Amino acid sequence: MATIQDIGLSAAVNILLAIAFLVAFAILRLQPINDRVYFPKWYLKGIRDSPTHSKAFMSKFINVDCRTYIRFLNWMPAALRMPEPELIDHAGLDSAVYIRIYLLGLKIFVPITALAFVVLIPVNWTGKTLESIKNLTFSNIDKLSISNVPAGSKRFWAHLVMAYVFSFWTCHVLYKEYKIIASMRLHFLASEIRRPDQFTVLVRNVPPYPDESVSEHVEHFFCVNYPDHYLTHQIVYNANKLAKLVEKKKSLQNWLVYYQNKYEKKPTKKPTTKTGFWGLWGNTVDAMDYYTNEIEKCNKEEAAERERVISDPNAIVSAAFVSFKSRWGAAFCAQTQQSSDPTIWLTEWASEPRDVYWNNLAIPYVKLSFRRMLMAVGLFFLTFFSMMPIAFVQSLANIEGIEKVFPFLKSLIEMKVVKSFIQGLLPGIALKIFLILLPTILMTMSKIEGFTSLSSMERRSAAKYHLFLLVNIFLGSIITGTAFQQLHIFLNESPAEIPKTIGVSIPMKATFFITYIMVDGWAGIAAEIVRLVPLVMFHLKNTFLVKTDQDREQAMDPGSFDFATSEPRKQLYFLLGLVYSVITPILLPFILVFFAFSYMVFRHQIINVYNQKYESGAKFWPDVHRRIIINLIISQLLLMGLLSTKRAAHSTPFLIVLPVLTIWFHQFCKGRFESAFVKFPLQDAMVKDTVERATEPNLNLKAYLQDAYIHPIFKGGDFDRPAAVDEEGNNPLVLTKRSSQRGSQRG
Amino acid sequence: MATIQDIGLSAAVNILLAIAFLVAFAILRLQPINDRVYFPKWYLKGIRDSPTHSKAFMSKFINVDCRTYIRFLNWMPAALRMPEPELIDHAGLDSAVYIRIYLLGLKIFVPITALAFVVLIPVNWTGKTLESIKNLTFSNIDKLSISNVPAGSKRFWAHLVMAYVFSFWTCHVLYKEYKIIASMRLHFLASEIRRPDQFTVLVRNVPPYPDESVSEHVEHFFCVNYPDHYLTHQIVYNANKLAKLVEKKKSLQNWLVYYQNKYEKKPTKKPTTKTGFWGLWGNTVDAMDYYTNEIEKCNKEEAAERERVISDPNAIVSAAFVSFKSRWGAAFCAQTQQSSDPTIWLTEWASEPRDVYWNNLAIPYVKLSFRRMLMAVGLFFLTFFSMMPIAFVQSLANIEGIEKVFPFLKSLIEMKVVKSFIQGLLPGIALKIFLILLPTILMTMSKIEGFTSLSSMERRSAAKYHLFLLVNIFLGSIITGTAFQQLHIFLNESPAEIPKTIGVSIPMKATFFITYIMVDGWAGIAAEIVRLVPLVMFHLKNTFLVKTDQDREQAMDPGSFDFATSEPRKQLYFLLGLVYSVITPILLPFILVFFAFSYMVFRHQIINVYNQKYESGAKFWPDVHRRIIINLIISQLLLMGLLSTKRAAHSTPFLIVLPVLTIWFHQFCKGRFESAFVKFPLQDAMVKDTVERATEPNLNLKAYLQDAYIHPIFKGGDFDRPAAVDEEGNNPLVLTKRSSQRGSQRG
Repeated sequence: MATIQDIGLSAAVNILLAIAFLVAFAILRLQPINDRVYFPKWYLKGIRDSPTHSKAFMSKFINVDCRTYIRFLNWMPAALRMPEPELIDHAGLDSAVYIRIYLLGLKIFVPITALAFVVLIPVNWTGKTLESIKNLTFSNIDKLSISNVPAGSKRFWAHLVMAYVFSFWTCHVLYKEYKIIASMRLHFLASEIRRPDQFTVLVRNVPPYPDESVSEHVEHFFCVNYPDHYLTHQIVYNANKLAKLVEKKKSLQNWLVYYQNKYEKKPTKKPTTKTGFWGLWGNTVDAMDYYTNEIEKCNKEEAAERERVISDPNAIVSAAFVSFKSRWGAAFCAQTQQSSDPTIWLTEWASEPRDVYWNNLAIPYVKLSFRRMLMAVGLFFLTFFSMMPIAFVQSLANIEGIEKVFPFLKSLIEMKVVKSFIQGLLPGIALKIFLILLPTILMTMSKIEGFTSLSSMERRSAAKYHLFLLVNIFLGSIITGTAFQQLHIFLNESPAEIPKTIGVSIPMKATFFITYIMVDGWAGIAAEIVRLVPLVMFHLKNTFLVKTDQDREQAMDPGSFDFATSEPRKQLYFLLGLVYSVITPILLPFILVFFAFSYMVFRHQIINVYNQKYESGAKFWPDVHRRIIINLIISQLLLMGLLSTKRAAHSTPFLIVLPVLTIWFHQFCKGRFESAFVKFPLQDAMVKDTVERATEPNLNLKAYLQDAYIHPIFKGGDFDRPAAVDEEGNNPLVLTKRSSQRGSQRG
Repeated sequence: MATIQDIGLSAAVNILLAIAFLVAFAILRLQPINDRVYFPKWYLKGIRDSPTHSKAFMSKFINVDCRTYIRFLNWMPAALRMPEPELIDHAGLDSAVYIRIYLLGLKIFVPITALAFVVLIPVNWTGKTLESIKNLTFSNIDKLSISNVPAGSKRFWAHLVMAYVFSFWTCHVLYKEYKIIASMRLHFLASEIRRPDQFTVLVRNVPPYPDESVSEHVEHFFCVNYPDHYLTHQIVYNANKLAKLVEKKKSLQNWLVYYQNKYEKKPTKKPTTKTGFWGLWGNTVDAMDYYTNEIEKCNKEEAAERERVISDPNAIVSAAFVSFKSRWGAAFCAQTQQSSDPTIWLTEWASEPRDVYWNNLAIPYVKLSFRRMLMAVGLFFLTFFSMMPIAFVQSLANIEGIEKVFPFLKSLIEMKVVKSFIQGLLPGIALKIFLILLPTILMTMSKIEGFTSLSSMERRSAAKYHLFLLVNIFLGSIITGTAFQQLHIFLNESPAEIPKTIGVSIPMKATFFITYIMVDGWAGIAAEIVRLVPLVMFHLKNTFLVKTDQDREQAMDPGSFDFATSEPRKQLYFLLGLVYSVITPILLPFILVFFAFSYMVFRHQIINVYNQKYESGAKFWPDVHRRIIINLIISQLLLMGLLSTKRAAHSTPFLIVLPVLTIWFHQFCKGRFESAFVKFPLQDAMVKDTVERATEPNLNLKAYLQDAYIHPIFKGGDFDRPAAVDEEGNNPLVLTKRSSQRGSQRG
């Protein structure tokens, strides 16, 4: 077991590492050449401009002003200075709420740490169990943990009471935070400027109708059922092929611009290129002529495809974005059921246009339900069995295994360097590759499940990732076996035994987790702020690939906080904190440092770097809340298991009340706040509508909404709406019988 | 173990018992004096009249027409003759769908029985395991069960395939039935005559507002937020005390009428009564004078209380019934969220006026949530621990125990008769009393949970009762221990062991359950049609208590199928059928007889006897469906456990797929059909509104809805609506600011 000295050493190493990263960041960020890596957000906002245009050549790339280096840590107070309302304006509510998770961690764990140090550490320290056992090696850390309290001791009452106090405090803070964030969200939605999604509803599973196109069918349905509210609608095209063509054309145009620039600089030599793959082989031709021709060809293809998409009824999917005259109408339609068959005419709030995931809009109900089941089974296998193929690959990665399968490689493998590489690194690499691929795998699974917006996919992936981390990292580290072995334990041990089995090993793993927090939570976060990968990528691109200003704009990768992976990782810290708060409180300060440091780093990143792909209005908060509650319940059950092995069985009836109360608290909060994140109250819609009608009586809403929800591929402006639909749209008639409506217009 | 002879004997006894009941019924129901017991439904419909008015004195009471006795079983074809649409008209959709549950049982189990007899019985019969084991007593029944197949045999593939076939068939039938009932419900709702609940929404948790009464606040809120749709509203009074007074007055009036009748018959003697309890002691006074005075007093009290309820603002609870101008408006309001705080202005469809449970309308959110938690914990204890106090009472009910506690009873107890009574009957009586009280206890728990309609309470109680029967009757009979001992097993055995433990004992319990089915399902149902308790009660009341015609009307107790208790009992048969279909198919014909016989009996009862208290439009079907799915999954898990003990472990991977598919099927059906039972589609509302507007353009909806939702106590017609509210209701103004509205009306 690790002693305090070991931990001190590890802490020193990690702190030095973190400081190294911070110093590197402080120096790098002051260089103008890195400006687009460390302040992309300001570029995107148009506030900051390329420094290359204005300054002297030298100072274009390197900062020679020494005074700025002295204040190398001044980004920290700067990051904290921006007040929250301004932050919401600047970076959106999603980001502002996201960093509040770290603040929540501080709010929960600062008082818990203080109390645990005042009450539990003295109780544990004076327990004197470990000293009395002869021939047992133990560290000072263990003397501070619950292991030091003799079995059956009355001292466990202190832990019991503290478990209650900590749980209540956590719930109290969670409740307050949920309340604040619900009101922040409502306030955010209420004060938002006019946005198309406020008026729009996504309608899916439009039933086929033999005599009418999808567009006509949607129009008639809503004209009849929402006579005073329906405004317009936008059909959805299956434009995947077209999107690819447009993508290709853009790349060709970039190359053309690049060669034109090159030619302008050196007019003596006409640039040439090769016709093969990536210009690496094939016939050498005049580059500008070649690309002009290619673009010409592409234009024709695109025009033909565009024509096909618009005219071919099969290119229209059975979904539409329906807009209403008021937010009230949209709020109404989104929350109600349209048809007596609940699998057709499904309505939901439209996400922001940039948040829509276009490929998933046309999945029929049966297929969707089947896909969800498949993915649920898939997630189960991924969580519990994914470590098995990796172990298999790892077992293959020994010399004998490879020699057996590929005998012809024998001479190569027997070389010393290759041998040590295979034996030493390959197993680790196999695991690392899997862990890097995992978020993509989970995201793909969420895509297959058929969600219609990126934000909902991310939330779903986060839930999957949380499960994976819980089983494979937390439980995996404690029981030290693969998840499959754990599953075996879960199936073959009694439900009352499982918490005991896990609970007993928890105190022993405290030092491991302390090290984990320092590596992943301290040095890892410091590495985040240096943005090593984007830094290297930017300079690589800038040197070799950037041809135009547009390219430089694209080479600048602001990134975003990736909710699907980073939120579950944070949850792991909440879990560790809650589990160890009673058992080994010495772990808590390490978590506090993590939360405080991360809060500053991510606040800085959100202000200066990240650019969110969408704005969901903190819709993820119920998930965050639920997962912290799950962590809390796990910690309560494990404590129960641990205490029951300590001959403190009398504690079980007291402790069993805690999870029951916690589940009730969750239900209570769910009923109290969740709908603020799911529904849009009619009263608020009414207020906003009325204000708008009063301030902008002549607003042409129809023109505003006309093209809001066309596929991004048609955003060029050269998209013609089918004339017939438009004409009808201007004269929405309310007639009860469809035949009479059609008769009056065409008969 | 019981042999076929034993079962044959038991069957003979039960069949004879059933025939005895049927003969008794055939004779009793033909007697005119019992007419009100066996045909109350027709009396309530006004189609049948008291036979006492028209016929000769003798034939008033006894049927002397011998020909009618010959056709004593002709009620059976008569019960089946009425076509379903007419049945729905006659008895309502609830009743019609309720008896379809029996039909569903037949649809599921007739093909399963046929297949099991053709495939599984030969496979089991020729298994020859039991014969080969020496010194083992076994019955022929066991030779027909899976026990007769040797462990590890390939014959288990037959059972495996059959498990799949049976599960798929069950799901197929369930799907078709759900579809039919969903369309029946939608058709029923669409073809219904105009009813107040179609236009009305129940609003709960109206927030307090210092300047306005609840009524004004509701009016203003809906005028502002539903400007074109709001019509009127009805506040809810807390009139519990008033209801008691009215009840008392009614009883006094009945007595007065009774004495007046008596006096008219014998004008020579003025009837007297005593002023004490039930007229049994106290001063003798003139009865008519006494009751006239009492009524007078009661009238005054009632008027004062009525005054208080109407004028006292504290008597108004924070709930209201809000009516809209169209079904569309109500459908809209019921499905959306009103305020940004989701715990106030809660809207839901109003139930029928007679279905409303008035006492629960004013429970605030926090209290409601707390009550639900308490009741969940209560249900857990009731299910798993209720057998303990009963066992305790039973253990007390021995001579020594009582003598210890009450020494002075010693001489009494030592008497032989008393002794044998205590030892022989008391323990059984203690259990019986508990089982009789159980539905009431469960219903009270549902009341405490705060449901607002009787129908939802009954559905909730049924879910609780199902759990209780599952644990205490089904599992209790198989594991033969109290539920608490089961809980102990569940907690201390591994999840993989539990299905094995239970699965192994299942084949041995087949004969027990066959006997149970015959006693409870055959003789019990036959007893149901004789209506022994209502028959005795009616004649007792008729002889001793009936004073007026009104009293006779009330003495006639038509009863109703009691969903909360009878549906879970039926589910037990589904469970037995599904569990034993693969294991001991010989049990299936007994279940078929139960379903067929019950179908006839209850169809007869619904046509002639039962009078439902409310009509929910088959809203209970999702519950029925879900519980059959739960039964199916239990049967699959138990089969898996049983087979894994039979050295047929290779079957587990095949069988584990079944519950997964079944759960998916449940999810699929839920998404596909459930909303038809929860929401009301806008399209249907629109159609109905449009038709109504066309056929009845001059309908005064407001007058129609005015008093629909007043507390039944005010239904007398002497209820004055507060004038101020009424006046405002006629001029609903749409203004955005409340102050301006109030200013314009009062300033």
